[in-house]
Amino acid sequence: MYTIAIHGGAGAVTKQTILEEEDPKFRAGLKAALHKASGILKNNGTAVDAVEAAVKCLEDNPLFNAGKGAVYTKKGIHELDASIMDGSNLQAGAVAGVRNVKNPISFARAVMEKSGHVLLSGKGANDFALKMKVEMESDDYFYTKQRYDQWLKVRHTDFYHLDHITEEMPERKFGTVGAVALDKHGNVAAATSTGGMINKQFGRIGDSPIIGAGVYANNKTCAISCTGHGELFMRAVAAYDVSCLMEYKNLSLHDAMQKVVNEKLKAMHAEGGMIGVDAKGNVSLVFNAQGMHRGSIDAKGVEYVALYGDE
Amino acid sequence: MYTIAIHGGAGAVTKQTILEEEDPKFRAGLKAALHKASGILKNNGTAVDAVEAAVKCLEDNPLFNAGKGAVYTKKGIHELDASIMDGSNLQAGAVAGVRNVKNPISFARAVMEKSGHVLLSGKGANDFALKMKVEMESDDYFYTKQRYDQWLKVRHTDFYHLDHITEEMPERKFGTVGAVALDKHGNVAAATSTGGMINKQFGRIGDSPIIGAGVYANNKTCAISCTGHGELFMRAVAAYDVSCLMEYKNLSLHDAMQKVVNEKLKAMHAEGGMIGVDAKGNVSLVFNAQGMHRGSIDAKGVEYVALYGDE
Repeated sequence: MYTIAIHGGAGAVTKQTILEEEDPKFRAGLKAALHKASGILKNNGTAVDAVEAAVKCLEDNPLFNAGKGAVYTKKGIHELDASIMDGSNLQAGAVAGVRNVKNPISFARAVMEKSGHVLLSGKGANDFALKMKVEMESDDYFYTKQRYDQWLKVRHTDFYHLDHITEEMPERKFGTVGAVALDKHGNVAAATSTGGMINKQFGRIGDSPIIGAGVYANNKTCAISCTGHGELFMRAVAAYDVSCLMEYKNLSLHDAMQKVVNEKLKAMHAEGGMIGVDAKGNVSLVFNAQGMHRGSIDAKGVEYVALYGDE
Repeated sequence: MYTIAIHGGAGAVTKQTILEEEDPKFRAGLKAALHKASGILKNNGTAVDAVEAAVKCLEDNPLFNAGKGAVYTKKGIHELDASIMDGSNLQAGAVAGVRNVKNPISFARAVMEKSGHVLLSGKGANDFALKMKVEMESDDYFYTKQRYDQWLKVRHTDFYHLDHITEEMPERKFGTVGAVALDKHGNVAAATSTGGMINKQFGRIGDSPIIGAGVYANNKTCAISCTGHGELFMRAVAAYDVSCLMEYKNLSLHDAMQKVVNEKLKAMHAEGGMIGVDAKGNVSLVFNAQGMHRGSIDAKGVEYVALYGDE
């Protein structure tokens, strides 16, 4: 038995905000990531390998705000955040504000396995990337016309996050990607990666690279990857809260995620969602926004891919 | 009724590792911070004001590894981390890897109140410090002979953290300072500040600026500030775990802290400690190391200052 779930961000994902020709492209991107990960899990691969592979696939896809498709900061560069956690031993690795790293999730894994640390940031983290011979790309690689045009519209403003639909920024979506998996060995893992908020400045770090906020994994409870208004997810310690509700209150995975996303985060006006698996084979995809790019293959092998709220 | 507790780091704090003439200086430093904070609380000040003032006091004291007394990184500079959280509204602010900021805790408070963000890092954070007119100091200000000599001994090695007593580094102590308070209005707050690990590199961030790991505050449960092996406290989401054990399992402040520090963290070989207060007026100081620089004024006004394990 194995399970995998992925997301590509939550927000104002509706048939009005997504162009008709883009809809199948998003679905194809999600499917490709799901299949990559399930192939690994089917062949007795580890949950850590599977979530890394799924997130890598989404990072390489320019449609998603992570890796190649990352948004631009106020200064017109790309600052990438990612994290990974292994539920079998509570090992974790994360990077924040790194540049020119092709696959931040693989770099986060190198931090977990080879640095003796959990979180490396900024220029110093890039020094470690070079030491680890992590695959790097030029600034050009991260250019996408859509993201560049988005940034051109707001670069002269202090507008930085996507919490209101405005004329400048009609598409309100928290661009983050993530994956959670249960492997045949009974281990769970979680991974999250993002380019952060468009036009962000001041070295802002959101929830994606924060263990307990944007990512968490523990065989005893669950593996969680979040997407949403990062500041609020950090203050809510959202991912670990799900785990605590399961461990200390005996809630099911789904009930714990519902409580955090649709009660606690909602009360804080925190828009977003999360995906989760547990060691029993349960999968849950929960969001309080209009939609969430998401997909899963459950313990029975049933595949599911969706974008909008009513699918 | 009000309470305040502070710490100045945990580790191999014994009568053998602290020079006889240093003992009273550490105690005087802790007392000064306690009195500063209790003066504010007595005069109806807020818990946020009190924890900021206490930590500022410890940051300005060269004996403690935070602010002026911060340790040197591998590159011979000072990279400072700090965080603050207001239990009345779950607002939080934090900075990581900032340079030349005289009082990182006050900067973290400016992030909480004026940035719209929770965590700012590195050079970008310094841009925000300038914009906020945060008080800056030259590199010279952060020079202390003791820290410089410590660094000279290890700068050519990859030795970076203080988890083993070695010939190069006989003093094993996790240098972090922190404060937690309950004010007369019934609100709690927590603050943590550090210079991090001696000889750290690669933009390493520990638990101190991470909401839920090194700091947490919530009127419903408690306010917590941690000190210890940061990587393990992050993986354990230590501060928020205390809050969850209180909220979801109805443990008392003291029992929840004991469970996290002396069971869960100990099982991970995570040396350190934490201080906590709750909204009922309870205060607790718990550590699994040989000692912890610590002090408190409880709800009855009883003052306590100690360094070693058996005090």
